[in-house]
Amino acid sequence: MSFVFSQTREIEAANEKYAASFTKGDLALPPARKVAVVACMDARLDPAKALGLEEGDAHVIRNAGGRAIDAIRSLVISQQLLGTREIVLVHHTDCGMLTFSDDLIRQKVRSELGQDANHIAFLPFTDLEASVLDDVKLLENHSLILDVPITGYIYDVKTGRITKVQRA
Amino acid sequence: MSFVFSQTREIEAANEKYAASFTKGDLALPPARKVAVVACMDARLDPAKALGLEEGDAHVIRNAGGRAIDAIRSLVISQQLLGTREIVLVHHTDCGMLTFSDDLIRQKVRSELGQDANHIAFLPFTDLEASVLDDVKLLENHSLILDVPITGYIYDVKTGRITKVQRA
Repeated sequence: MSFVFSQTREIEAANEKYAASFTKGDLALPPARKVAVVACMDARLDPAKALGLEEGDAHVIRNAGGRAIDAIRSLVISQQLLGTREIVLVHHTDCGMLTFSDDLIRQKVRSELGQDANHIAFLPFTDLEASVLDDVKLLENHSLILDVPITGYIYDVKTGRITKVQRA
Repeated sequence: MSFVFSQTREIEAANEKYAASFTKGDLALPPARKVAVVACMDARLDPAKALGLEEGDAHVIRNAGGRAIDAIRSLVISQQLLGTREIVLVHHTDCGMLTFSDDLIRQKVRSELGQDANHIAFLPFTDLEASVLDDVKLLENHSLILDVPITGYIYDVKTGRITKVQRA
């Protein structure tokens, strides 16, 4: 691979500082607040800061879009082995998932990489609120997910505010 | 569903505070530092704090174990549509993925939920260092992932410190 600038030196330096004042070495493996968050990978969203989660509080599962179907493996482990009993789902405004289609990204992969990505469902959406309701419903109806409270929010990247998505 | 205590009131109150002093409303959609982090969902790991990531800096993809194969959809979107050009992978000590097997969790799902989970690969591992090296290699060799710097770390939940995993 040709030389490229890497972020690792800066990341390692930041971690040195974090570790130097680290005081959370005695936390238990199971999340203290028994909640699993499913959220988008978006760079502008910091789930811990935005939702008030400290180290040890909650599982945080993140993927492109914060899509529920992509979080099932992790949620089953979270519930069955680590005792979480609530799910909080967070999608957000200005999401990249609103900007493309499966066809578009498959074409891009074909032209950039010469590869076929037809076997991947990239899970974009066209309606943000509907994406939250769909994902809450998917989790509520999923045979491998426990009957626990599931709440869906939209995070506004302009204001930092979450708004609960109410069912129709 | 029977009544259960929910974390949402506390989460909403914490978010009120976060939004009240929010100053990051003008961030761009593509991650400023062009890096995608793949990390475990573990409650004790706060990737933003531990790696020095501010809002807007990096995509953060998290799942049970921080497994690479489960992050491919998100990474393709991150690279092809949002311009990230580096991957940082973080697994950690005392990981729940070291404590079970596919057989064990499938049995648990059968006894707790009366359901068959044989179609899900839960991706546990028995060797932490090998899990990082395997996942870095998987990404390096994956036909849908760009030829970018990929670095694997182990986060120590006792010290808050990351250690780069060196290839054999």
